[in-house]
Amino acid sequence: MPEIREEDLVLFFVPSWGRRYLLHIRERPSFSTHKGIFSLKEALGRPFGVALRSDRGEVGYVLRPTLEDLLMLLPRRTQIMYPKDIGLTLLRLGVGRGMRVLEVGTGNGNFTLALSYFVGPEGWVVSLERRRDHLRHARENLLRALKILGNIGLLQVEETTWPFPDGPLFDAAFVDIPEPWKVLPEVLRVCSPGGPVGCICPTYNQLERTGVEMEALGMVDIEALEVLYRKVLPREGKTRPHQVMVGHTAFLIFGRSTVASREGER
Amino acid sequence: MPEIREEDLVLFFVPSWGRRYLLHIRERPSFSTHKGIFSLKEALGRPFGVALRSDRGEVGYVLRPTLEDLLMLLPRRTQIMYPKDIGLTLLRLGVGRGMRVLEVGTGNGNFTLALSYFVGPEGWVVSLERRRDHLRHARENLLRALKILGNIGLLQVEETTWPFPDGPLFDAAFVDIPEPWKVLPEVLRVCSPGGPVGCICPTYNQLERTGVEMEALGMVDIEALEVLYRKVLPREGKTRPHQVMVGHTAFLIFGRSTVASREGER
Amino acid sequence: MPEIREEDLVLFFVPSWGRRYLLHIRERPSFSTHKGIFSLKEALGRPFGVALRSDRGEVGYVLRPTLEDLLMLLPRRTQIMYPKDIGLTLLRLGVGRGMRVLEVGTGNGNFTLALSYFVGPEGWVVSLERRRDHLRHARENLLRALKILGNIGLLQVEETTWPFPDGPLFDAAFVDIPEPWKVLPEVLRVCSPGGPVGCICPTYNQLERTGVEMEALGMVDIEALEVLYRKVLPREGKTRPHQVMVGHTAFLIFGRSTVASREGER
Amino acid sequence: MPEIREEDLVLFFVPSWGRRYLLHIRERPSFSTHKGIFSLKEALGRPFGVALRSDRGEVGYVLRPTLEDLLMLLPRRTQIMYPKDIGLTLLRLGVGRGMRVLEVGTGNGNFTLALSYFVGPEGWVVSLERRRDHLRHARENLLRALKILGNIGLLQVEETTWPFPDGPLFDAAFVDIPEPWKVLPEVLRVCSPGGPVGCICPTYNQLERTGVEMEALGMVDIEALEVLYRKVLPREGKTRPHQVMVGHTAFLIFGRSTVASREGER
Repeated sequence: MPEIREEDLVLFFVPSWGRRYLLHIRERPSFSTHKGIFSLKEALGRPFGVALRSDRGEVGYVLRPTLEDLLMLLPRRTQIMYPKDIGLTLLRLGVGRGMRVLEVGTGNGNFTLALSYFVGPEGWVVSLERRRDHLRHARENLLRALKILGNIGLLQVEETTWPFPDGPLFDAAFVDIPEPWKVLPEVLRVCSPGGPVGCICPTYNQLERTGVEMEALGMVDIEALEVLYRKVLPREGKTRPHQVMVGHTAFLIFGRSTVASREGER
Repeated sequence: MPEIREEDLVLFFVPSWGRRYLLHIRERPSFSTHKGIFSLKEALGRPFGVALRSDRGEVGYVLRPTLEDLLMLLPRRTQIMYPKDIGLTLLRLGVGRGMRVLEVGTGNGNFTLALSYFVGPEGWVVSLERRRDHLRHARENLLRALKILGNIGLLQVEETTWPFPDGPLFDAAFVDIPEPWKVLPEVLRVCSPGGPVGCICPTYNQLERTGVEMEALGMVDIEALEVLYRKVLPREGKTRPHQVMVGHTAFLIFGRSTVASREGER
Repeated sequence: MPEIREEDLVLFFVPSWGRRYLLHIRERPSFSTHKGIFSLKEALGRPFGVALRSDRGEVGYVLRPTLEDLLMLLPRRTQIMYPKDIGLTLLRLGVGRGMRVLEVGTGNGNFTLALSYFVGPEGWVVSLERRRDHLRHARENLLRALKILGNIGLLQVEETTWPFPDGPLFDAAFVDIPEPWKVLPEVLRVCSPGGPVGCICPTYNQLERTGVEMEALGMVDIEALEVLYRKVLPREGKTRPHQVMVGHTAFLIFGRSTVASREGER
Repeated sequence: MPEIREEDLVLFFVPSWGRRYLLHIRERPSFSTHKGIFSLKEALGRPFGVALRSDRGEVGYVLRPTLEDLLMLLPRRTQIMYPKDIGLTLLRLGVGRGMRVLEVGTGNGNFTLALSYFVGPEGWVVSLERRRDHLRHARENLLRALKILGNIGLLQVEETTWPFPDGPLFDAAFVDIPEPWKVLPEVLRVCSPGGPVGCICPTYNQLERTGVEMEALGMVDIEALEVLYRKVLPREGKTRPHQVMVGHTAFLIFGRSTVASREGER
């Protein structure tokens, strides 16, 4: 049973107010809340799942953060992708061990983290970003979560100049920039034919232009969609959906390039 | 650029009627449809993404199947889990390389396949199933998709007798049987404290009983939810949501055991 | 207790296959189905709600059709508005006794019917339609449902020439044509200031242009929305949402004219 | 063009912060907000839709309240029914001029108001409520909105003793109490056979028991459902759904009694 160590990134969860905190016990040996102080360092050497009590009697738990916890709790500067969208996107792109994936638009780096996690050390993720400040912030987030960026390459690029030679360098690609349609020809140029390509679009307008461009490039199996997520409150004799829900994050659109779509671009 | 070989499981996609077929070219060197015959063996030695023409001029594409294609297209005997639910579940359970995951209720083996894919050879998946016919069917599906079951153990068990010693054998667990609440104490007995546990419940009644039992067992961070998925049709000047959608597959519920919840069960 | 008469439009409902039929017993004294023949004329003189048995033992009920039954069951030639959208629209437009309502785009006449029903003989509904065939069809539907068109005026118009003098002829208006934005200035010209105006738009593109035009015309309290409707199956111990649902009918958008918005158009 | 009078209940709408206020100008000749004071009495004698300016330059509009405005803005003490649910319910119950409708559970009186509005002076609404304080509050709301309660009867009753003789006193009924199934036999006893009966249920559990009881009472055409409502933001070149939505208000369930179901209860 693995013990909690000082250098672990841990999830501290307090049921009574439902909040999750992501922290290093080394940096926060004691943790002040409005319901008293928790001595986190008491958890060291004990198994994950251990309960701590604050000096005012509140109970909190030290848990091992899942990938989802990291995705949700790393500091954000821009809109992040949500787990409901990330989960389906990973499947749709066929992300898995050993894959080479291109990401256009690093943002906070949270989808980069998910890609890195699932392609593993045999694969690699190249993530392109135009803004230097985003890139710096994403790098910090990724280092915090992963300690080393073994399979991740972060590159600052302008939209029009990409550093790649022709040819199938990537098995799949994901685009998260305001005008995805502009980079699709470049994306197809460097992806394997048949490889899945996805884009995320906050507005209908972006979705429409991206879909039209995918079609024009000869891509096939194009599907646009939105994922909705509603909490349900299971309580004995009075179970009902939650009264509040997120109405919208973004639309997703996926397609596959074909040999024709790549040749059409030359 | 990897070439298409006889023994590859390929996805054959025909845009004009939107169907996907999962097949071995060795078994189906030529493929008859209502729009003519495709000579699939012409794709051998060519790259994925190649276009073929039927003898009546229809175009189809030979693509590399993603995990999602496998999940959706392997033969089914019972209700399967859908990608919208699988994707979020994988994140919520924190599934990743090297993890040891318990599945209760193998069914068609499609979630087993997803688990195996993401834990990789360093991890393992143990999947329990009461019905021998389901287990046989799941094994066939898994062999078809994976060729060897390196990191999967399929076990036929009765609900009340599990073959495991006490102790944290698994990092996470997922339960897909009609009465998940009955096995939760056993599940907690063999999972690491703090480890995420998820259940899938088609009805709200199952969801309610499962949630109540999770609470009674001292689990924390309990969240029940449903994921909805709606297609959107992006067309120039007339983009709109699709008129048909799946209204329901199943509810999901997740929680984490704590040291207390495991001890409470002894 | 009102008795069923030959000339009543009745709803015939057969629970075992869940279908509703709207018919006159005079026209269909006996009704053939795949589960036998029902002698509908046996219901004459008996109260609504009476059960009939077919010669093969199936049970059916003769019910009084509600407005919703009429809306759903009158013959359709074009897309109809659905009750989920009609109900909210009636409230949003403030439709009620004595109101004068303008409808642009008669279509099948089913929303015209709803308006006529709720404004009553003290109010009136003027419905404009460009296509003569739609107008003929709508008139047939309305006559079938209402016998006389006491408070309804159906007018064939071209988009650009409307027969109305300036001034507040209508208390509210509803537009159901492909390009609602084109007629909005005319609509505002003949509606009372402050009066609610609604439009129905199948695509987001139509919705966007309509919203932008409403804003440009100085309308206020603009709200666009969609209404979703999901069946739930309540069964003892296994209640769950229905697996099939309608994913989309149309978007709705509402706003109110102001004195400024009408003057802006002069 | 009707002029605004002192005794009118008016809707005052301020676009810049999107709030609606329901008030009598007599009671609020001047109206203070965080953006200055509006002199509402300046609107007297002018047409609805008139714009006013606060002493700090903010613009507000005096509008005629629709039924929906009244439903949403009358003071609430208990959970109200929302327009999305009211609109569909009115259609499903076939509410219209001259109908006699029974309501069980007056609550705030907001659905009572809607019923009164649509059945008109030729119809009547009888609303039963157990709690005297709710009844008092509902009466105040109704008087505020309607001035006189011409077609409404409000009765305080205990659940088990209803003042009605046998027989078809009502054409339709709606039940909004925590245990609708308990009163269904009484409801069927006093409703016309074939008449639609609806219930509103916040939880799945209530919905299930109500559905099971409807079935047991021989009701037919039973349908349970939920209505969801999502705002869309139409903006030039960046139209998207709203990020916040109401996830749940209540489930609705409808059925029709039959001659058999009424006799079964004797």
